[in-house]
Amino acid sequence: MHSIAVYQEHFLVHLENEKILKEPKNLYEPIDYILRLGGKRMRPVLTLLSTEIFDADFKNALSAATAVEVFHNFSLVHDDIMDDAPLRRGKETVHEKWNLNTGILSGDAMLILAYQYFESYEPSIFRELAKLFSKTALEVCEGQQYDVDFETRDDVSISEYLKMIEYKTAVLVGAAMKMGAIIAETSDENANLIYDFGLNLGIAFQLQDDYLDCFGNPETFGKQVGGDIIENKKTYLYLKAMEFAKAEEREQLLHLYSIQPNDNSDKIESVKEFFNQTGASKATQKAIEDYTMKAFETLTKMQIGEEKKMVLRTFGEKLMKRDV
Amino acid sequence: MHSIAVYQEHFLVHLENEKILKEPKNLYEPIDYILRLGGKRMRPVLTLLSTEIFDADFKNALSAATAVEVFHNFSLVHDDIMDDAPLRRGKETVHEKWNLNTGILSGDAMLILAYQYFESYEPSIFRELAKLFSKTALEVCEGQQYDVDFETRDDVSISEYLKMIEYKTAVLVGAAMKMGAIIAETSDENANLIYDFGLNLGIAFQLQDDYLDCFGNPETFGKQVGGDIIENKKTYLYLKAMEFAKAEEREQLLHLYSIQPNDNSDKIESVKEFFNQTGASKATQKAIEDYTMKAFETLTKMQIGEEKKMVLRTFGEKLMKRDV
Repeated sequence: MHSIAVYQEHFLVHLENEKILKEPKNLYEPIDYILRLGGKRMRPVLTLLSTEIFDADFKNALSAATAVEVFHNFSLVHDDIMDDAPLRRGKETVHEKWNLNTGILSGDAMLILAYQYFESYEPSIFRELAKLFSKTALEVCEGQQYDVDFETRDDVSISEYLKMIEYKTAVLVGAAMKMGAIIAETSDENANLIYDFGLNLGIAFQLQDDYLDCFGNPETFGKQVGGDIIENKKTYLYLKAMEFAKAEEREQLLHLYSIQPNDNSDKIESVKEFFNQTGASKATQKAIEDYTMKAFETLTKMQIGEEKKMVLRTFGEKLMKRDV
Repeated sequence: MHSIAVYQEHFLVHLENEKILKEPKNLYEPIDYILRLGGKRMRPVLTLLSTEIFDADFKNALSAATAVEVFHNFSLVHDDIMDDAPLRRGKETVHEKWNLNTGILSGDAMLILAYQYFESYEPSIFRELAKLFSKTALEVCEGQQYDVDFETRDDVSISEYLKMIEYKTAVLVGAAMKMGAIIAETSDENANLIYDFGLNLGIAFQLQDDYLDCFGNPETFGKQVGGDIIENKKTYLYLKAMEFAKAEEREQLLHLYSIQPNDNSDKIESVKEFFNQTGASKATQKAIEDYTMKAFETLTKMQIGEEKKMVLRTFGEKLMKRDV
């Protein structure tokens, strides 16, 4: 086994050597641009890690890892259009730097390219990878649609919200890890367990993202703290607060989530107070803990050596402390 | 062998029975809508026809045929956004009936769904179909990009134009037919020959579309005759006219292709005269004939019975007379 940093390095070198730039330039330049914008490359790294967890050479998984990263970036390009986002990782988004049509078409090409990266595998592995990939990709679209739908609904339940983040973000983490299991040709049981490990860790991670967006340290949290509150996003914190709040508190929170003041600092402070008062903060921390534990529980059933279990557990703990 | 009408009928029944409507509704309703808008279903029918040409049961090809039709409709949904088209087959386009984001996201889901329709095939066939599909789908994106690029270029060559229509429309016709060959497990040579048959017939068909858009009978041609001239589209006719024209004629045609009068009838008449005068009309008719012949020539090398060759030839002739 190698350290996460080593997998990251190997993946970056592999990606660097991929020839993306072909003709027509206006189609492939935006793809090259977004793929080289950076990021932690966590998903492809998980594919490499998982391959070695099940005793195969991570180098066999570089192609599938590339598929995962290309797909993830496809979803960013199209999501940024839908969210009208000007920036991604501090740089212009594709539709902003080029235009809407380029964003759509280059994104489409990336989705197809992702499938092509599986073509280096023999038929039975190829079919398993492509099937898992299609199922996952469709769920990511469904998750994105739920997210869009929730913006205009005021009756979103906690379980609906959990399903949305599961589909929109966690299934790809589970699939990235399961791909390693498929390439290593481990048992179906192990493959399903590592999927559940990634899935639950992915949900925990996303809930923690909700939490840190509100209560994180502005110095270390990548995004603007309070951003979700400014945008009136119905996060886990908000939904829990609405659930726990008394009738009149609920009215006040609803009011706060309807205004868009020029200076948001008072609004952010008031909402945070509600989140603490109602017990929503504690409930969110508990949910994060629960999903992390659920991920770790899959390890007890996984048919791998204890030292491999340790690797996964340590990775999970570091991820949830956000110092990976 | 069955008649085209029988394949059409079987495909329509098959499509009718596909369960498209799932949750979330806002993602799947537009997919169901566009797939049920109609159309001649020529591409999936060609997959069924080709399967029987190579002595397998067309029913084995219904799933691949569905993939081809779903992909074709995906490309319509995204192209309609890029072209800002309000209508498709006389009905509202998806982004018009819903909105931009729905058009993008439902389109994405359709591209993924298309891959899923190949999952009913065993691994080696699945891999061949998916590989051919990815290559084709990427070429369609490239063709669309060339088409967009050509709008703002005034130095498009005939060979560039031919490559654009080959990628944007003809490769999918070739691939639809090759899929039948793959499912029937015929020789690679036969599979490549039927691809070339479809590809060349596809190019001939698209050139004929250019021709009929200008010189077609308004009663029988589906679209507005003269539409390409109104939009100043650099079609084969236009590019040939520019090639053949003397310096001063070229200036006049360039001028006509820069104006956007309220009443287009004079402009259309003048441009048509140029197309006839310069010999561009004749050259286009010859190119249509040449590509049709090129398609038919593949039949001499194909390892199939004479009656099967007759079926393909008759289909080609009827298609080019547009009474299929």
